[in-house]
Amino acid sequence: MSGRSPTTEHRSAGHLLGIEGLERAYVEEILSLALEHRQALKAGTVESRLAGKLVANLFFEDSTRTRSSFEIAAKMLGAKVLNWSPTGSSLSKGETLLDTVRNIEAIGPCAVVIRHRASGVPQLVARHVRCAVINAGDGIHEHPSQALLDAFTLQDRLGSLEGRAILIIGDILHSRVARSNIHCLRLLGAQVLVSGPPTLIPTGIDALGCRVVLDFRSVLRQVDAVVALRVQHERQAQSFFPSQREYAALWGLDAAAVEQMKPGALVLHPGPVNRGVELSGEVLDGPRSVVMEQVSNGLAVRMAILERAT
Amino acid sequence: MSGRSPTTEHRSAGHLLGIEGLERAYVEEILSLALEHRQALKAGTVESRLAGKLVANLFFEDSTRTRSSFEIAAKMLGAKVLNWSPTGSSLSKGETLLDTVRNIEAIGPCAVVIRHRASGVPQLVARHVRCAVINAGDGIHEHPSQALLDAFTLQDRLGSLEGRAILIIGDILHSRVARSNIHCLRLLGAQVLVSGPPTLIPTGIDALGCRVVLDFRSVLRQVDAVVALRVQHERQAQSFFPSQREYAALWGLDAAAVEQMKPGALVLHPGPVNRGVELSGEVLDGPRSVVMEQVSNGLAVRMAILERAT
Amino acid sequence: MSGRSPTTEHRSAGHLLGIEGLERAYVEEILSLALEHRQALKAGTVESRLAGKLVANLFFEDSTRTRSSFEIAAKMLGAKVLNWSPTGSSLSKGETLLDTVRNIEAIGPCAVVIRHRASGVPQLVARHVRCAVINAGDGIHEHPSQALLDAFTLQDRLGSLEGRAILIIGDILHSRVARSNIHCLRLLGAQVLVSGPPTLIPTGIDALGCRVVLDFRSVLRQVDAVVALRVQHERQAQSFFPSQREYAALWGLDAAAVEQMKPGALVLHPGPVNRGVELSGEVLDGPRSVVMEQVSNGLAVRMAILERAT
Repeated sequence: MSGRSPTTEHRSAGHLLGIEGLERAYVEEILSLALEHRQALKAGTVESRLAGKLVANLFFEDSTRTRSSFEIAAKMLGAKVLNWSPTGSSLSKGETLLDTVRNIEAIGPCAVVIRHRASGVPQLVARHVRCAVINAGDGIHEHPSQALLDAFTLQDRLGSLEGRAILIIGDILHSRVARSNIHCLRLLGAQVLVSGPPTLIPTGIDALGCRVVLDFRSVLRQVDAVVALRVQHERQAQSFFPSQREYAALWGLDAAAVEQMKPGALVLHPGPVNRGVELSGEVLDGPRSVVMEQVSNGLAVRMAILERAT
Repeated sequence: MSGRSPTTEHRSAGHLLGIEGLERAYVEEILSLALEHRQALKAGTVESRLAGKLVANLFFEDSTRTRSSFEIAAKMLGAKVLNWSPTGSSLSKGETLLDTVRNIEAIGPCAVVIRHRASGVPQLVARHVRCAVINAGDGIHEHPSQALLDAFTLQDRLGSLEGRAILIIGDILHSRVARSNIHCLRLLGAQVLVSGPPTLIPTGIDALGCRVVLDFRSVLRQVDAVVALRVQHERQAQSFFPSQREYAALWGLDAAAVEQMKPGALVLHPGPVNRGVELSGEVLDGPRSVVMEQVSNGLAVRMAILERAT
Repeated sequence: MSGRSPTTEHRSAGHLLGIEGLERAYVEEILSLALEHRQALKAGTVESRLAGKLVANLFFEDSTRTRSSFEIAAKMLGAKVLNWSPTGSSLSKGETLLDTVRNIEAIGPCAVVIRHRASGVPQLVARHVRCAVINAGDGIHEHPSQALLDAFTLQDRLGSLEGRAILIIGDILHSRVARSNIHCLRLLGAQVLVSGPPTLIPTGIDALGCRVVLDFRSVLRQVDAVVALRVQHERQAQSFFPSQREYAALWGLDAAAVEQMKPGALVLHPGPVNRGVELSGEVLDGPRSVVMEQVSNGLAVRMAILERAT
């Protein structure tokens, strides 16, 4: 949607609009800053680097999880947080999206964290405001903070991702998480495999530098990690496969599948998990699962993103 | 509703219930304190003058914009904020309005910021609590913080308002903004003209000290600023004129109209703007528009209001 | 529900799951810590004992009042607060309760304050997380913070509760407040009497150590305080008695009833009050009523609970 040039054009202004087009140095800086923040969180020594500043959360799509993670990240850095909820707000009174954003900008935030069901909204917004814009998920386009926290979690456990093989399973077609992850993992030197119901693998996805695998079980022994994507009831994915039960049987990860993986190979999921669908309970609660670490690391990574953006 | 005496009676307790009945010195103190806060916000040197204190936001009517402005104003001054939302709260469990307010008071706020669809509610509340009550809009009665931020914005751009001519266009009948603005601008020595669909000009409005103008275009050359009021779909205004398109044609400000205004004359709007109805996009984004400055200044003015009240 | 052993088992971890099974020393420590906090609140000298820490509010049942009290308590102690609302969150996306809680835990709170319509949920949660769990009301089981603030208010006014007689009137059957109060008051040495519509007095309630009184008027002269319970429209209580009017006539406290009480005897209500049903307006606003003090004290007591838990 945004294309490579607007991303590049705006990066200097502190925006984080997507992973596509970012330089590896930026990603590595975020990962290294996040490590610092995670240690400070554990030690209780977080510095109020955003003291006196304001971060605006502008979520047009419901997301307790991502919004809370950004909110707590901002507060931990000493910032004030404005949670702007479109329900009952000026949007329902006929204001345009850009006028709403301009109004929020006029209150003076150093960064606006934005989620919208339409791909490209953060890019559009970034062209019209002076403060930093952080994409917290736009349609089926990108979800860069998720990709960065996934990369952080993988690197934290596996060391350098150079030459590692990461398999993404699920609804690749509608997944902004998949798209951002492919860009991010590739940037860090990993090999990315994607698999899922054939109806949910977009044609031409290999142009992003990944390899499509029809039978994911055939590569389980080779990969260093599996990222299981969420089946999104709330999107139209349901009509792309017969039932959740069939999805679980064909594309879910259960104990038998996971046993085939290499020692030390990991299981990730962006959450919330449909327990028993994408991952069996045994796998989710098992030793390979780093799903809760992803959430914990998310806080440190978003602190890094906010600090870097402002 | 409240009449002059309750306003006067309560002002000593730090309340801000309306502009009517206020003394000019109070308004000037707020404007001067707001200037100080705006500079501190820009310089990042805001003092935590409300540290350890609690401000309660009690909005019975939806308002992301005004509520957020008061919320951030309080937080910038170091206060904690309690956002009390009547949805799903004790009101739906059968508690009376005054009992709800007494409960909030018992938590110990230094100020309660209240919005209600019924005119007179803040005045009623002020008679029953010891903490300061700030009217954030009551029915069609008053919206004093809006009038103060409009006055601040006008004075910031035009200098003294003494002898200035300000034209208010729109639904004067249902507008608490108009009512508060007329009082505030008159208090500061300005001449106030009002215009709008004849069905929306209350008879006797001139008793507030303003002059009704049937054809606003006839006075555009003389005024120093136009305040365009919002067409409120959510109130019953719709039935007072045939359509938004007709409103825009007859009462909207477009580039041609604005060209007739004096050099330096300004366009204001309390927001949210129905782009293309009250103001054309060209006017809203044009050089005379100070609509975004109103929002920015609103934060500083509400910091002044909160500080003065407590 | 939880039984004695889990409560005991978890108390060392800082949980507050219910009053049943607590030791008297714990309750006395909370009451004494709360006194300290109330003085600090009045003097404006509250120390940020939870600075840099995070408290999560997880309310599956609407409760502006209790949630706000815990939220402000945490903020006054310098903690950040995460208000997790299940509406529009991952629960509606198919996540299990425990997975939601594990996600919140992964963000790193020192305590999770939880309310749920099902009895036993906080106990269940406490078995699966490492942070402290505070029960803010679970079904018809317990509401320990309410019982502690009631005990604080009583002791503040009456001195030691040893040998005092406290009468609880109302829907004992569905009341977690009654259950927690009976345990707490008994622990502090008081004698507890319960009364209410016979359909709403559970058989066997005397096993908790209280005495059932059929005609509460016959004991009014002897008691040191009456706790009037709320008639909960939102629960099914309505079908247990013919009408609110009849409830008010038979079980409500009016001025005539209150006149029979000893000098200094008090009237409490957990709120929100149905004015004219459980308490007449005259009684609620009268000199024996400490209903607003309960709310004020609630803040100090919840500060004590949070500090003790973390």
